[in-house]
Amino acid sequence: MGVRLTETNREANLRHRALQVIPAGMYGHQSVAQLGAGYPQFFREGHGPFVVDVNGREYVDLMCSWGPIVLGHRDPVVEQAAAEQRALGDCLDGPSEQLVLLAETLVETIADADWAMVAKNGTDATTGCLTIARRHTGRAVVLAARGCYHGAAPWSTPVLDGTLPTDRAAMRYFDYNDVEDFDRAVAEAGDDLAAVLLLPFRHVEGEDQELVDPHFARHVRGVCDARGSLLILDDVRCGFRLAHGGSWEPLGVPVDLSAWSKAIANGYPMAAITGTDAVRDAAAGVFLTGSFWMNAVPMAAAVATIRHLKQIDGVSVMARAGARLRTGMLAQAEAAGLEVRYTGPDAMPYLTFVGDADHRMLQAFASEALHHGVYLHPRHNWFMSCALDDAVIDRALKATEPAFDLVAKKFGRSPLA
Amino acid sequence: MGVRLTETNREANLRHRALQVIPAGMYGHQSVAQLGAGYPQFFREGHGPFVVDVNGREYVDLMCSWGPIVLGHRDPVVEQAAAEQRALGDCLDGPSEQLVLLAETLVETIADADWAMVAKNGTDATTGCLTIARRHTGRAVVLAARGCYHGAAPWSTPVLDGTLPTDRAAMRYFDYNDVEDFDRAVAEAGDDLAAVLLLPFRHVEGEDQELVDPHFARHVRGVCDARGSLLILDDVRCGFRLAHGGSWEPLGVPVDLSAWSKAIANGYPMAAITGTDAVRDAAAGVFLTGSFWMNAVPMAAAVATIRHLKQIDGVSVMARAGARLRTGMLAQAEAAGLEVRYTGPDAMPYLTFVGDADHRMLQAFASEALHHGVYLHPRHNWFMSCALDDAVIDRALKATEPAFDLVAKKFGRSPLA
Repeated sequence: MGVRLTETNREANLRHRALQVIPAGMYGHQSVAQLGAGYPQFFREGHGPFVVDVNGREYVDLMCSWGPIVLGHRDPVVEQAAAEQRALGDCLDGPSEQLVLLAETLVETIADADWAMVAKNGTDATTGCLTIARRHTGRAVVLAARGCYHGAAPWSTPVLDGTLPTDRAAMRYFDYNDVEDFDRAVAEAGDDLAAVLLLPFRHVEGEDQELVDPHFARHVRGVCDARGSLLILDDVRCGFRLAHGGSWEPLGVPVDLSAWSKAIANGYPMAAITGTDAVRDAAAGVFLTGSFWMNAVPMAAAVATIRHLKQIDGVSVMARAGARLRTGMLAQAEAAGLEVRYTGPDAMPYLTFVGDADHRMLQAFASEALHHGVYLHPRHNWFMSCALDDAVIDRALKATEPAFDLVAKKFGRSPLA
Repeated sequence: MGVRLTETNREANLRHRALQVIPAGMYGHQSVAQLGAGYPQFFREGHGPFVVDVNGREYVDLMCSWGPIVLGHRDPVVEQAAAEQRALGDCLDGPSEQLVLLAETLVETIADADWAMVAKNGTDATTGCLTIARRHTGRAVVLAARGCYHGAAPWSTPVLDGTLPTDRAAMRYFDYNDVEDFDRAVAEAGDDLAAVLLLPFRHVEGEDQELVDPHFARHVRGVCDARGSLLILDDVRCGFRLAHGGSWEPLGVPVDLSAWSKAIANGYPMAAITGTDAVRDAAAGVFLTGSFWMNAVPMAAAVATIRHLKQIDGVSVMARAGARLRTGMLAQAEAAGLEVRYTGPDAMPYLTFVGDADHRMLQAFASEALHHGVYLHPRHNWFMSCALDDAVIDRALKATEPAFDLVAKKFGRSPLA
């Protein structure tokens, strides 16, 4: 550009240039257009539990790239495995042995997996599950819970602009955890119920998170069994963070198909579908493919990520980090006289302020926390990684403390706190 | 596995293991189940113009990983750019400056691009183009040419198993290059014609390729202008191989939206949509996103690939390699007394034998060529890369010569040749 950029104006420069060549300057879930003041749009670097924006500011990363970073940025074990495969090749005329290694690793690890297929996007995996379920059952209707995110394809995107009603003609909706409403939807589907598509727990942008009711999960399983319909678990966001063998493994409710992505390869582009032997033939009979789905490097990264997570008991590491964050933040909120709701599993928490319907308190909180060096999102759940040790969580808490104080000062203490 | 694997049984071992943990042992476009004898399913390595299978056999690569490899496997310029970005970070909480650099590079390079968006799969890009076109026009119907491949999503996959008629409820079809049939389809779409989706030329598996008729292209452009509909060029397979500025740049027929993937980043998982200013607002108003779409490393690879291709005039390099291959193979076919059709642009050729309706001659030819050290596909077009210099093309021709001889011996000389 002919201008010498200082550390502090790279963000402004990139935003200006982006507006010329990218619609609205940025798009999709990582656009910061709707966020509070101070959110950087462009990042320079990630290392361990930290991200650095293009202006050189370092943050404790509580978003983990919206899920993918599960061991920490540029984790040496994963990078080493990826580098070894990269020295041979990545995108070849067919798969490498990494495909078999990854499928074996998934089948070994995932409670309900007898086989695996790979893809690139979480949306590829959820879409593939629906296609397999329809092939298996010869039926059309898929039930999903209202407001739950299952990808950005026309059948699933929460933004309807540019999509057609026919894109979701066979989708029907019910309220998560509501047995009665679920049964109504099942009755309406009649004998055309191909599958039920569920998140491991209810996480909807800007709302308090809600764990699955075990009774509800067992009820859904029973209805699927009785009707010959498939139960699909969309483990794209939660997978490899809540349990090593699938997010419903601790619940003991088996599923027929699971969709995976995000944390599966610590940031390398990977997605997968796993399923049981009963649906193997249907999976072999559909056409799921993409130009880069057989790339060997992301698979090597996935194998290393999953093995390493199990080796260090990553799920416990993240739960421990999350528990320390929760305890610390709840104490800070109480000290500031603020009533909050801290919801979801410790490894994927979210916080709201009571009485903050328009999220103004949350936005002010997140911006102030950001200013003090922790990156979290005001409307989307947060993610723990294994790189968040006690010292880093304490550093995050040093940033959230003044943020709670600011909210109390600006909006007043909660009447009930 | 406890068994010491020799060079010659790794393929068998992997196939055996794959059958346990992958539906049908492999799936999608890179499955070799339908190919002739001797095709390896698993690859170990790629370097320059060569691929090596898991049994250690090296082939001249005329498939280029089905398109992505445009500079050669592990091209040093691309790998260097990717490594530099990787040392900073790849999957962060938002995009890096590579997003802006890539969008700027695309806008500079592509004749009809005023802006760019990125994705992972070619299917993401074609699907995104349809969504943007529907948002822009407020209409539903998209016309596409019969048999032409536009991705593996339910609306586009050539295999209907597991999909629903409603998935393609707004798709209408016509015959490529057929003005009359196109006009019929336009008339049937009435005032609901959102877009026409076209390949730069007609390449359909197992069929002779057919270049676009310039008159047809201009006619489609005129109809779109008259009706306020968009012309979408699906440049996923051809892009960056036939012309640096888009495959219809030499034709001089402008398009409104283009879909890109495959060759854009020399094998790194990348896709893009480009469009004109007229559709910029529509593009900003749809929700297109994915967990890894903002990964910085594939974007750095894409910037390096596009810049390097232009620098070395890669399109001419590939056309030259393809012309040498064509001249050599046609001479070999003639010498063997075989009548063949060699079709498509030199950088993306395909060969069929006259009178070989069931492709038995082609399958025998491809298997024998493979046996002699060249990797090509009997039903899918081939791809040139910039790594195919004269010496390597001559090495490929050394492998195709005995393959033509075998076909002549096995099936007899063509009656007309």
